[in-house]
Amino acid sequence: RFQLEMQTVTLIPGDGIGPEISSAVMKIFETAKAPIRWEERNVTAIKGPGGRWMIPPDAKESMDKSKIGLKGPLKTPIAAGHPSMNLLLRKTFDLYANVRPCISIEGYKTPYTDVNLVTIRENTEGEYSGIEHVIVDGVVQSIKLITEDASRRIAEYAFEYARNNQRNSVTAVHKANIMRMSDGLFLRKCREVAENYKDIKFTEMYLDTVCLNMVQDPTQFDVLVMPNLYGDILSDLCAGLIGGLGVTPSGNIGANGVAIFESVHGTAPDIAGLDLANPTALLLSAVMMLRHMGLHDYGNKIQTACFDTIRDKKVLTKDLGGNSKCSEFTADICRRIQDLD
Amino acid sequence: RFQLEMQTVTLIPGDGIGPEISSAVMKIFETAKAPIRWEERNVTAIKGPGGRWMIPPDAKESMDKSKIGLKGPLKTPIAAGHPSMNLLLRKTFDLYANVRPCISIEGYKTPYTDVNLVTIRENTEGEYSGIEHVIVDGVVQSIKLITEDASRRIAEYAFEYARNNQRNSVTAVHKANIMRMSDGLFLRKCREVAENYKDIKFTEMYLDTVCLNMVQDPTQFDVLVMPNLYGDILSDLCAGLIGGLGVTPSGNIGANGVAIFESVHGTAPDIAGLDLANPTALLLSAVMMLRHMGLHDYGNKIQTACFDTIRDKKVLTKDLGGNSKCSEFTADICRRIQDLD
Ligand SMILES: CC(C)[C@H](C(=O)O)[C@@H](O)C(=O)O
Ligand SMILES: CC(C)[C@H](C(=O)O)[C@@H](O)C(=O)O
Repeated sequence: RFQLEMQTVTLIPGDGIGPEISSAVMKIFETAKAPIRWEERNVTAIKGPGGRWMIPPDAKESMDKSKIGLKGPLKTPIAAGHPSMNLLLRKTFDLYANVRPCISIEGYKTPYTDVNLVTIRENTEGEYSGIEHVIVDGVVQSIKLITEDASRRIAEYAFEYARNNQRNSVTAVHKANIMRMSDGLFLRKCREVAENYKDIKFTEMYLDTVCLNMVQDPTQFDVLVMPNLYGDILSDLCAGLIGGLGVTPSGNIGANGVAIFESVHGTAPDIAGLDLANPTALLLSAVMMLRHMGLHDYGNKIQTACFDTIRDKKVLTKDLGGNSKCSEFTADICRRIQDLD
Repeated sequence: RFQLEMQTVTLIPGDGIGPEISSAVMKIFETAKAPIRWEERNVTAIKGPGGRWMIPPDAKESMDKSKIGLKGPLKTPIAAGHPSMNLLLRKTFDLYANVRPCISIEGYKTPYTDVNLVTIRENTEGEYSGIEHVIVDGVVQSIKLITEDASRRIAEYAFEYARNNQRNSVTAVHKANIMRMSDGLFLRKCREVAENYKDIKFTEMYLDTVCLNMVQDPTQFDVLVMPNLYGDILSDLCAGLIGGLGVTPSGNIGANGVAIFESVHGTAPDIAGLDLANPTALLLSAVMMLRHMGLHDYGNKIQTACFDTIRDKKVLTKDLGGNSKCSEFTADICRRIQDLD
């Protein structure tokens, strides 16, 4: 059988339950014979020259070479001025698109079935500009920054994503009735880009209307594209529809193939080290990663095994409604991968 | 029996289905012998001196005298620069608090049961400041304005509301991890005000976390207070949980008892005049109004009759899953009110 070349991926295990779920993913990848070589790096924010926060040089170098990262949860120290690790990573590698497929998992009961949508969030600007001022005592302004370039870039990403993933429609989510200039610019770019993708249906909808319709019938949505803050909100809302952050994968995509895939749940310090964590979100993020790298067959195999284990309901971690250990859940997925071969 | 003095309420029937559902409410109020005298006024935006948009003087005068308004849906003309009628009314009467009780309606099936929460939205500033600039070509900024006064005022309103409505907790919804100064100020004021309401539990939560938790288990929430845009989003999301804007009441509250209660659904021009509209949202808003005016008994009686009609499922408008006319639905509610007497 044709032997694929190994590709290097930077693995950032993260804090709390991060190391356990990372081990689980590595074991599953090994069983699936996925052609990945892991380069493990720890990431904490450090102060560089001039007092700027940065990630450790050896982590940066690894990512610069491998271009692809997989990352568990990172805790953000609650020190004044300390940046969120998530924001620092997005910034360091200009990961401009956050992509979250939200697809109902058969056998894992939520109030909704047949959810099958993808949120695509602009990751670099908007309400996250970090520019704020005190105007006079008791009056503060925060600046939301929207640029033509970032808006066009995220719109293009959304339409390309739709086309490459056999999806039929893209909805731009906005409040251009209120923020006429900023959201107006975002919306205009979406409309312009839509002109070049006649095969994909384009619609636009107010954020409030999307939220209302989403909880009434999420099956009406396909790909949604939006500015930073709206994406923060909608991506979490949609994760909730399919069972929460414990089962929702996420990818942060930059230019030239650079990308970091990550579980977006917390570090769960209360159960860290107890072999109780659920590795599903990180595993499904790793599956997204495999597809991003063109390794669809490996991705599909692992995803099938994971979903089979969940549907079967016999070996589930506590948060999924069972009472198995992380290692038992992982072993069940591995067994199914071997059976699939 | 003790005869209550009649109080005047300014009735703004609105556009599309507005007149029909307003008539329905008037008929139900008459049957319930609610001591309300209606003063009907039309509202469209007109250009005043200096080109400023304003509401017609006779509507303004009526509201200034009565202090209380009930309003159906208003269409906003799609002319460049034309203000939203909703925003114009909030501004004209400084209606700083938007209040939306979202309570599951027995017999009206949605994916959720036992929702019983209230969103309280700051209505005057934040992302709705309307201040935007082009910095250079292709770069736009919108300004979110948060003030100490407006933040304290809405926080105080929320805690007073909780206390007066036998509610146990207030959650401040924010993104102070991102907008540290503006949402930080809002949050600080909430914390300060909370100190004066030791009988009410105070918690704070990120907006994204609220959305996620909301769709997973809305029963964990009670009173939620938040800046303008977050309120726009969350109030619609929560309306979706209980069946949409057709069954969700809303009140906009100002200082010194001034208030406008309104249905927040659209004008539904496609069914206007056909006796097919559902008056529930406007009726429940009118019930909120009665309570605001201290007329709890009348409010309770009307609400009971309305909920009984819905629970009974025999006489429902189309959007509620039946095939009765607006007038039949209204008559069924009236009959029950008479039976209650
Ligand atoms: C951790 C926090 C800064 C971040 C955000 O608000 O974007 C998080 O909520 C996310 O969605 O990645
Ligand atoms: C009509 C529109 C301007 C308004 C808003 O965005 O506030 C509406 O969505 C609302 O919630 O009242």
